Amino acid sequence: MMSAVGSTAASPPAGGVDGLEAIMRRGGEGLRRCMERTERHLERVTARAGTPLAPYAWAAIGGGGKRLRPLLVVLAAESAGGPPDTHEGEERLVRAAVSVELVHSATLVHDDLIDGAQLRRGRPTVAVEGGRPMAVATGDLLFSRAFAELARNDDAEQLRALSQASSALAEGELLQREDLYAAHVPVERYLMRCELKTAALFEAACRLGALTARAGSSALADALGVFARRIGLAFQMLDDVLDVSGPVERTGKSRGTDLLDGTVTLPFILARARDPGLATFDLASLCGADGPQRAHALCERIAATGALDEARERALAVVAEAKSALPAILPDGRSALLDMVADAVVERYR
Amino acid sequence: MMSAVGSTAASPPAGGVDGLEAIMRRGGEGLRRCMERTERHLERVTARAGTPLAPYAWAAIGGGGKRLRPLLVVLAAESAGGPPDTHEGEERLVRAAVSVELVHSATLVHDDLIDGAQLRRGRPTVAVEGGRPMAVATGDLLFSRAFAELARNDDAEQLRALSQASSALAEGELLQREDLYAAHVPVERYLMRCELKTAALFEAACRLGALTARAGSSALADALGVFARRIGLAFQMLDDVLDVSGPVERTGKSRGTDLLDGTVTLPFILARARDPGLATFDLASLCGADGPQRAHALCERIAATGALDEARERALAVVAEAKSALPAILPDGRSALLDMVADAVVERYR
Repeated sequence: MMSAVGSTAASPPAGGVDGLEAIMRRGGEGLRRCMERTERHLERVTARAGTPLAPYAWAAIGGGGKRLRPLLVVLAAESAGGPPDTHEGEERLVRAAVSVELVHSATLVHDDLIDGAQLRRGRPTVAVEGGRPMAVATGDLLFSRAFAELARNDDAEQLRALSQASSALAEGELLQREDLYAAHVPVERYLMRCELKTAALFEAACRLGALTARAGSSALADALGVFARRIGLAFQMLDDVLDVSGPVERTGKSRGTDLLDGTVTLPFILARARDPGLATFDLASLCGADGPQRAHALCERIAATGALDEARERALAVVAEAKSALPAILPDGRSALLDMVADAVVERYR
Repeated sequence: MMSAVGSTAASPPAGGVDGLEAIMRRGGEGLRRCMERTERHLERVTARAGTPLAPYAWAAIGGGGKRLRPLLVVLAAESAGGPPDTHEGEERLVRAAVSVELVHSATLVHDDLIDGAQLRRGRPTVAVEGGRPMAVATGDLLFSRAFAELARNDDAEQLRALSQASSALAEGELLQREDLYAAHVPVERYLMRCELKTAALFEAACRLGALTARAGSSALADALGVFARRIGLAFQMLDDVLDVSGPVERTGKSRGTDLLDGTVTLPFILARARDPGLATFDLASLCGADGPQRAHALCERIAATGALDEARERALAVVAEAKSALPAILPDGRSALLDMVADAVVERYR
């Protein structure tokens, strides 16, 4: 689930954060400056929201998000020669990074509302804190601001990239709802959901970075978009493995939370094919007071089939595809940092 | 309230629809063709949404909306020389009209969810029919599609216009929530809410029309935007008068629905200043089983203060301002149809 991605991403999974920290160290002054400017710009967007929104907007945007998507925007730009060497050039890159994070945050607020989630990054969700109307309106405002920020870059191709991703996110959420508690979800269908709910915004992030860069072009944006899409897909696949594998200290939530919500993820799909007893298992039977314990037991049973290993291998293969495609599309030495992002995504699992 | 605007607009208020029908008759073949293409394009967007969304999207988009905003887009384009005389030229205009209606529809879906509204245009709302998650996701998808459609026009200025309006809509909804049941709402604050919740999208409609037209320019877009903003403001002010004045046969909802929801509108604000007994009246006291009857009685009391006449006069003055500004900004004879829209807005009240 999207909310699971967000919460896992935002809880402190040591591997993930370490990986991103290493990228920041290695990326040098320009990267750090762009990321800091992105952070300040996000703060400004929030502050401008005024009362009563500002605290909710900040709860959604701030509060420990690790800014993976903005990082992808900036790294993609760096791979394409960096932003033009002017204040406005860097500002365009920052606006692109901000717009992607705003769409991501908007989605989290609405997904939490839909899922009835209580906590996000260890704090009450906007829906819990401010109520349903506030959560709907906060999400809508963050969406709108994303497009308003990016529109200032005066580049319709950038806006196309963001609007496609934003449509995909909504479609993915709808597909996922359609599949809730479904008796049979083909792997292809699951992968399509991941493409829509997660990979599309990763793709947009790299596209935007390439389009704001000095040596950017539509062709390079396409190529980096393909890379990012694979990484996003793997990110979601591994996140769904984490939901089943735990451990709790790592994910910050009990095992099988997605299953408990009725979301049919890859480990469960694969386990159903391996264990005849699971083939007819109905997730709706997890409802009730002892749901969490029964979800935990289901996770153990899924793990026993070897489905987690298979899901992980499939995800690693997707990451490998993404990494091997990189050198071909980038000038010498330009792929190192993006390579590290690919590794950081994998490290989240280990 | 936005939902009140929508529901009144969509219920069959004879004056309004007649006025728009007259415009369609007078507007000629080009206008009718563009509006029909807009309608078909909206159907296509809906159909492409696939299951499970399509029926909900159609419930939100279709179902008797009178397309006032797309009409403004097309009329603004006609005032600026019409769309370029090519299929693509007209297509760009149609996409602009579609994008405005999609944002409007998205807002209605989310507002109905926020307000807990049961009916929209005489049918169950998306939230009632499909549940809260479906309503959130349907609105998000319609928002995203709006930007995706408009992005195909490859004009960042158009996207800026739409994203500003879309931000304004969300801000307006938040302001309105902040003002719910408020003891004192200054007239200026009420007007600002109307600007955000209604006028901004009217403005975007005329801006987009001007920007897609043969003789369009940023300057003309600014000027037509000012006109549309006034019309939108008057539209909302008169809608709020209708909520208090009724009659029920006209509005399709019981008198004082907005007041019952806690929304402090202009008639109530003005009446509070005129009737000391109302100055301290708390809308929250309308809660309870006999709320509708008590809201009806409050409407009578507001009417008795003369506040409805004052609110109506203020709105008519705003319309007159809009109309008088038109000839100055348009070539000879180009303002007739937009003038008729201004009249149609007023006729909704009569």
